[in-house]
Amino acid sequence: MKASFSSLPTWQCPVLPAIADLALAQRIQDKLNHKTKPQGSLGRLEALALRLGCIVGSDTPRLHQPQMLVFAADHGLAAQGVSAYPADVTWQMVRNFLAGGAAVSVLARQHGLGLHVIDCGVARDVTQDEPPSTPPTPSAPMDAQPAPRLWSCKVAYGTQDSSQGPAMSAEQCQQALAHGAAVVRQLPGNVVLLGEMGIGNTSCASLLVARLADLPIEHVTGMGTGLDAAGVQRKLAVLRQVLERHADKTEPLDVLAAMGGLEVAAMVGAVLQAALERRVVLVDGFITTAAVLVAARLQPAVLQRCVFAHCSGEPGHALVLKALGVQVLLDWQLRLGEGSGAALVWPLLESASAILREMASFADAGVSQAH
Amino acid sequence: MKASFSSLPTWQCPVLPAIADLALAQRIQDKLNHKTKPQGSLGRLEALALRLGCIVGSDTPRLHQPQMLVFAADHGLAAQGVSAYPADVTWQMVRNFLAGGAAVSVLARQHGLGLHVIDCGVARDVTQDEPPSTPPTPSAPMDAQPAPRLWSCKVAYGTQDSSQGPAMSAEQCQQALAHGAAVVRQLPGNVVLLGEMGIGNTSCASLLVARLADLPIEHVTGMGTGLDAAGVQRKLAVLRQVLERHADKTEPLDVLAAMGGLEVAAMVGAVLQAALERRVVLVDGFITTAAVLVAARLQPAVLQRCVFAHCSGEPGHALVLKALGVQVLLDWQLRLGEGSGAALVWPLLESASAILREMASFADAGVSQAH
Repeated sequence: MKASFSSLPTWQCPVLPAIADLALAQRIQDKLNHKTKPQGSLGRLEALALRLGCIVGSDTPRLHQPQMLVFAADHGLAAQGVSAYPADVTWQMVRNFLAGGAAVSVLARQHGLGLHVIDCGVARDVTQDEPPSTPPTPSAPMDAQPAPRLWSCKVAYGTQDSSQGPAMSAEQCQQALAHGAAVVRQLPGNVVLLGEMGIGNTSCASLLVARLADLPIEHVTGMGTGLDAAGVQRKLAVLRQVLERHADKTEPLDVLAAMGGLEVAAMVGAVLQAALERRVVLVDGFITTAAVLVAARLQPAVLQRCVFAHCSGEPGHALVLKALGVQVLLDWQLRLGEGSGAALVWPLLESASAILREMASFADAGVSQAH
Repeated sequence: MKASFSSLPTWQCPVLPAIADLALAQRIQDKLNHKTKPQGSLGRLEALALRLGCIVGSDTPRLHQPQMLVFAADHGLAAQGVSAYPADVTWQMVRNFLAGGAAVSVLARQHGLGLHVIDCGVARDVTQDEPPSTPPTPSAPMDAQPAPRLWSCKVAYGTQDSSQGPAMSAEQCQQALAHGAAVVRQLPGNVVLLGEMGIGNTSCASLLVARLADLPIEHVTGMGTGLDAAGVQRKLAVLRQVLERHADKTEPLDVLAAMGGLEVAAMVGAVLQAALERRVVLVDGFITTAAVLVAARLQPAVLQRCVFAHCSGEPGHALVLKALGVQVLLDWQLRLGEGSGAALVWPLLESASAILREMASFADAGVSQAH
């Protein structure tokens, strides 16, 4: 199914109140403490259950119809040779997502996640060969799994080269933000998983993180999808030049427009919209975390609605996670992107909420407590 | 469904050849390298896929009908006050497993795992109130999930107090080993997940690990299900006394009989049988790892068939994992036992095998490779 937006409302940054229902948090903690297990013995699974309950506002949280959103776009900066792969791989991989052959396709199928590919600015036209005959029902069993859905939200055929000028205009940035928000508004369920595809977008994430988290560019620049040491040095020289050119940009949206990507901007819009609706936002790797950083600089309370899936092999990821003050669920040195890490850990979130909903208390089960 | 064994063959330790199909390992690695992703970019998920393929002997491994085995027994040593909980909790929790209210029950239901509770030596009679009407079909959807199955393999109403003499006789130990093997022989599928329940069994695991991995008892003794600092010191004094009394025992099966537990002995039998049949053995926490240590001292190649789910909060666990030279999948400070950690990580194994089976190669998907 292909969806597009003929007219979009102007994007306005939603105002996110802090989640501060202390009575609910206490009720959830009490429930966990009375389950048939020594207190705290499920370790971080209990902390995760508490977090999820607070996000969705229930001491019996039920996560339903999780939606995997893969935002795709191309980057003018790729012309400077910052990636190990040719730029056309963005388009090729979008086709692979839609055809079901990519890592995120496999994992979305395994877990019954709705899979959405959002063309925010891929350099070639993207079409979907076979429209699915049924509307998305992401919890359906594997054989009845709906086909991935393509969303046409193309703002431009890729960004401009940020080493030469701004990556996008303020209007383009606003459009991409509005697209991201609009996609989320139309999705069912109370969980979104974030993924992305865009040759050159580790560069763009490094730039955003360097500027908005005030981290040295050489600490947050890595091999991306597979540069060698000399390639990383060339990439670093380009990124220094970009930072220099946009030295006057410090406000989040100005930085995003100058050095960001269309898929990153759409993710920022999606994250803020999902947070506003009290959906759980499951964040993948370095690039999606960079988008969350932008969102958090606009609305800090967004972080209360996020769960961070994993710490990637890209060196900037650990640093931006630390700057945000957040912990990840898994450290498996994934560095693929696409949302693969988010999709991988998804069942751990289901487990946390199931524990809270379904485990018996000592009283229910007639089990004695500690001496 | 309640199953018991009227007559058991004498247990004989199976001989495990090393898995040494280098051609298969190379084929799997090549397949992973040609999937549509930068080489190695799925990090430890790729290493896990390789391990699973090698265990089941296929470059398209399909894990099917996973069986969660919870071995339960009581410990005479509990009379010395080594646990925060009264001994009757073993029996109470077995009832909770069967009734569906325990953490492992919830997680087994979430993942469609067959759930088996094996009474190896619980101090009270265990009965199952309602026999399920259907035979186990562990991959059935949640609403058609078969009831947990109780296996009556009681060798004694708990072990003797190992601070006063041997925990069990050589014959009892052999019987428990044979029971564990017999249960596995009757199960379908190619994965077993190990879990256990027995008030006092962190003590017994500490003793086995101290002797068989030659580790100082004070380094491998912890709070168990929730002792305070003074309680840990009392426990440590008892464990020193037990080690002293059985100072002459050094052979794995002698150590197991002198200081082990009936549920641990049954696990040793189950692990060796599952490994012989080239099933994947998914190991949970400290106590199940202690059982694998005993098995590995008998047949080192058993470790090739094991995947270690997590590193628990119990201090001895990290040390025995190091002694075995193995890595875990998750470090969430779980310390509940029951198999809860193994059940929690199960979908990560499914993901690894799905990646190997289902992801497209560069050639299949028409995606360009790196420059």
